[in-house]
Amino acid sequence: MRLSRFPLATTKEMPADAQVISHQLMQRAGYIRKLGAGLYTWMPIGLKVLQKIEGIVREEMNRAGALETLMPAIHPAELWQESGRWEIMGAEMLRLKDRHGAEFCYGPTHEEVIVHTARQDIRSYKQLPINYYQIQTKFRDERRPRFGVMRAREFIMKDAYSFHMTHEDLAREYDNMRQAYIRIFTRLGVDFRPVQADSGNIGGSASEEFHILAGAGEDLLAVAEGGSYAANIEAAATLPQPAPAAPSATLSKVSTPGQKTCEQVSKFLSVPLTGKVKLLVVKGAEGGLVAIALRGDHQLNEVKAGKHPLVASPLTLADPAEVQRLFGAEVGYLGPVGCPVPVIADHAAAAVADFVCGANENDHHLSGANWGRDCSYVEQADLRNVVEGDPSPDGVGTIKFYRGIEGGHIFQLGRKYTEAMRFSVLNEAGEAVTPYMGCYGIGVSRLAAAVIEQKHDANGIIWPDAVAPFRVLICPIGSDRSPAVKDAAEALYAALQAKGIDVALDDRGQRPGSMFADADLIGIPHRIVIGDKGLATQQYEYKQRAAAAAEMIPATVEAVLAKLA
Amino acid sequence: MRLSRFPLATTKEMPADAQVISHQLMQRAGYIRKLGAGLYTWMPIGLKVLQKIEGIVREEMNRAGALETLMPAIHPAELWQESGRWEIMGAEMLRLKDRHGAEFCYGPTHEEVIVHTARQDIRSYKQLPINYYQIQTKFRDERRPRFGVMRAREFIMKDAYSFHMTHEDLAREYDNMRQAYIRIFTRLGVDFRPVQADSGNIGGSASEEFHILAGAGEDLLAVAEGGSYAANIEAAATLPQPAPAAPSATLSKVSTPGQKTCEQVSKFLSVPLTGKVKLLVVKGAEGGLVAIALRGDHQLNEVKAGKHPLVASPLTLADPAEVQRLFGAEVGYLGPVGCPVPVIADHAAAAVADFVCGANENDHHLSGANWGRDCSYVEQADLRNVVEGDPSPDGVGTIKFYRGIEGGHIFQLGRKYTEAMRFSVLNEAGEAVTPYMGCYGIGVSRLAAAVIEQKHDANGIIWPDAVAPFRVLICPIGSDRSPAVKDAAEALYAALQAKGIDVALDDRGQRPGSMFADADLIGIPHRIVIGDKGLATQQYEYKQRAAAAAEMIPATVEAVLAKLA
Repeated sequence: MRLSRFPLATTKEMPADAQVISHQLMQRAGYIRKLGAGLYTWMPIGLKVLQKIEGIVREEMNRAGALETLMPAIHPAELWQESGRWEIMGAEMLRLKDRHGAEFCYGPTHEEVIVHTARQDIRSYKQLPINYYQIQTKFRDERRPRFGVMRAREFIMKDAYSFHMTHEDLAREYDNMRQAYIRIFTRLGVDFRPVQADSGNIGGSASEEFHILAGAGEDLLAVAEGGSYAANIEAAATLPQPAPAAPSATLSKVSTPGQKTCEQVSKFLSVPLTGKVKLLVVKGAEGGLVAIALRGDHQLNEVKAGKHPLVASPLTLADPAEVQRLFGAEVGYLGPVGCPVPVIADHAAAAVADFVCGANENDHHLSGANWGRDCSYVEQADLRNVVEGDPSPDGVGTIKFYRGIEGGHIFQLGRKYTEAMRFSVLNEAGEAVTPYMGCYGIGVSRLAAAVIEQKHDANGIIWPDAVAPFRVLICPIGSDRSPAVKDAAEALYAALQAKGIDVALDDRGQRPGSMFADADLIGIPHRIVIGDKGLATQQYEYKQRAAAAAEMIPATVEAVLAKLA
Repeated sequence: MRLSRFPLATTKEMPADAQVISHQLMQRAGYIRKLGAGLYTWMPIGLKVLQKIEGIVREEMNRAGALETLMPAIHPAELWQESGRWEIMGAEMLRLKDRHGAEFCYGPTHEEVIVHTARQDIRSYKQLPINYYQIQTKFRDERRPRFGVMRAREFIMKDAYSFHMTHEDLAREYDNMRQAYIRIFTRLGVDFRPVQADSGNIGGSASEEFHILAGAGEDLLAVAEGGSYAANIEAAATLPQPAPAAPSATLSKVSTPGQKTCEQVSKFLSVPLTGKVKLLVVKGAEGGLVAIALRGDHQLNEVKAGKHPLVASPLTLADPAEVQRLFGAEVGYLGPVGCPVPVIADHAAAAVADFVCGANENDHHLSGANWGRDCSYVEQADLRNVVEGDPSPDGVGTIKFYRGIEGGHIFQLGRKYTEAMRFSVLNEAGEAVTPYMGCYGIGVSRLAAAVIEQKHDANGIIWPDAVAPFRVLICPIGSDRSPAVKDAAEALYAALQAKGIDVALDDRGQRPGSMFADADLIGIPHRIVIGDKGLATQQYEYKQRAAAAAEMIPATVEAVLAKLA
């Protein structure tokens, strides 16, 4: 492509509303233009990136045997009422009425639509398994759209839905999709991690997220160094610990006036945080309250705790007034000794001996407390966030934290939607059975931003080759006064095109500084500078976008191709 | 593709709501499935066709130098208020509110969005001309969605928008787009006509529609046999005719009791319809009424008449009571002799001598009337529909009618939108000027249906090669019991794939009748049948979908490729 015919619209102005680097760079480099809150136009250079990402996703989904379809964006309310989600979905789902007053939504996801479509055609076990996918525009009415296309309202998603006769076959396809996702993210050229995840309100059992590692990522990931375990911190497991040492201290009450937090008490009493046990009081699954015991240095994991059978879901803190009434003390002085409600102890809290805890009396704590001798718990469970240095729950390696941007999510849904929408097929015995279902999403348009969050420097974007708008940019210096430069640039441009390389020629007649600044900002991986000086010794200047310095290479197509290899 | 992994969902059931053959066949062949009124899911086999059409459109738009973008489907109301169309657009435009109560629409077209996008980046004449396009999902809330994807509510459109410094440059790009459209429709493999068209409420001057000829088409096209003129009947012009012969009859009043229509009068008085002049009374441009004189066998063209400077736009018939009051006679007995309102005569009506017309007195007509001697008109104009046999208005050939389905429409918009939205650029003299604009649409998803309307027979669809889901289908006969047949089918399948041919292998184990019925219904252009009998003499059976009979060809890849050439 000639840049004279493929207008760039780069700018040094920093967009006022762009909080993250990918949004700033996409706007400054002319990849996107804002139409309204969370609504963006993909400009020609931006769409090239989007189409390359789409192309990789499509190829790998096809390779995995999934069948591409295209479903409507607008869904009749009846379908969502049938699954029961019309009432459950919040304000994020955009609801609308047609000219006749009939209710619809702009689909935020397509489980209902695909089940409705599949049940029209699939009647026999012989037609399963099947995996349908689409690459399609969705809308989620975010309360506060931000971060450009990373959290837009209108966005492009690849969503796939599979149907199976057995849970085992669902697990097989889930793994097939997992492998396809690994191929996709590998081909994108980014550092990524598949991590175990919470299923959230999509439902189902197993689920994994695919994260692109980036400092600005909204998610915290627990990854085993020296092992293969990785999980979103929401879902990362901790292990039971060895039983506590035998009590060696005597239980005694100490005055701790105004010392409410673990940090305050630890300092006040000169005991390490790890020697403190704190109590959080939450609503119980069957009414009443339960107390969760955590080690002083640990944080409650609300997702894991909310799934404990004794705890109300979603996790809800107890009313402080009710706590005061039951415990006779305010939050900050609670402890398991003489606790009026059942205690569930986190594994790490259960492993502490001679600990400090609240005395259930204002301004007082206990020291030398021990499980068994002084207090007890009804159950021991995994209730806290992992911390760096924790052993990996699979026994291999040690947990380290990374920040990630969620690019994909795969789910084993089970029969939640197929049951609700009465989709049944005949099995080999001629009996009607409900199929199992999986779903597999990739945030196609957000991936463009996520790649930039990982791949940029002070000068601009650093695209991986596979998704760059152009792989190579040819910059002729002074082509207006040097026919040799102009001819060499045109010849190289034609030669690379003939080799099927996606190459751009900067024939806008800009000065070198401006050309190079644009090249860096838009993030072209490979830059070839052609000037009279280099040509005098039969050389081009080559610079890899991420490299510190340029180098001289022979002025041949082969030398350029060697750099691209 | 193996059909065992690419499930067909063909059915003999005729969908109850499918009125046109393309809707019936797309549903029966499993190309689409209905989600709601005017909402369709494109199943895997249907999406293959859609993607091939998209691919042709994209290639030719790129070849023509247009730049692909992707604009949001959801538009802020403010933009449409700025252009003035928020109030004008009827109930077809789906309006909605987000969670904060802000108003939006689901874009039925993108003039406002592209002008808003362009005015952010384009400030100088140096950046023009430019032509942006997108292939994107639109929504029009049709009152009565019907005909499947031919008139769906949610549909895919290619829309392009160009900007120019001068009207001449707009005309140049308009022709460039016209040539691109001719290449697109030619590559689709259909019989089509570009025809002059009315611009409707999009506005602007020149416009042409691209029609796929089909008996079920909603539009009537006037095409010159032996010439190049072609126009939608709405826009087709008629020529002035030679002045009438000198009067030879005397004017006389005749009693025609109860004879109101031209047909009745013609029969009653035994004069040909072409010897009758009828009068239609309509509202005038500046209040009051005007009368339009037409020859008895001709029909008023409301679009052309509505554009006449003396006639109110849109064309509105006069109130019968007012006509009675002014003329002293009811509609059916009106005529130009003694007419109380100005008369505009259609060219053909103005060329008749010694004509019969209403006497402006109930139950009476005049015979032997003549322009000049007995009555007059204030203007002569082109006000009627063309009829078959009319001379082409460019002087070459004779008009014949065809029915067509509109697949594309190109417009010279002028400065309607750029002015309303205050988009200006600096010209060479540094002055702010308003650019000219063109727009160019193709109904991508409706084209799939339009092709079927032209290409089908009693057994199903007959796809042109370029848009067929598969070009070739291999049908092995008895492959379960004949390893030779199975091996030959697999070998041919692999060989054609290696040649880059989009080939399908029917490995479902169906009986021949069922395989052939499916092949015909889904419309694969080339069918190769492999059986033991043919193999015994080293032959395949080849059938071109549209051919009456199959033929035997040598059992070689070369022989198959020769048939595809």
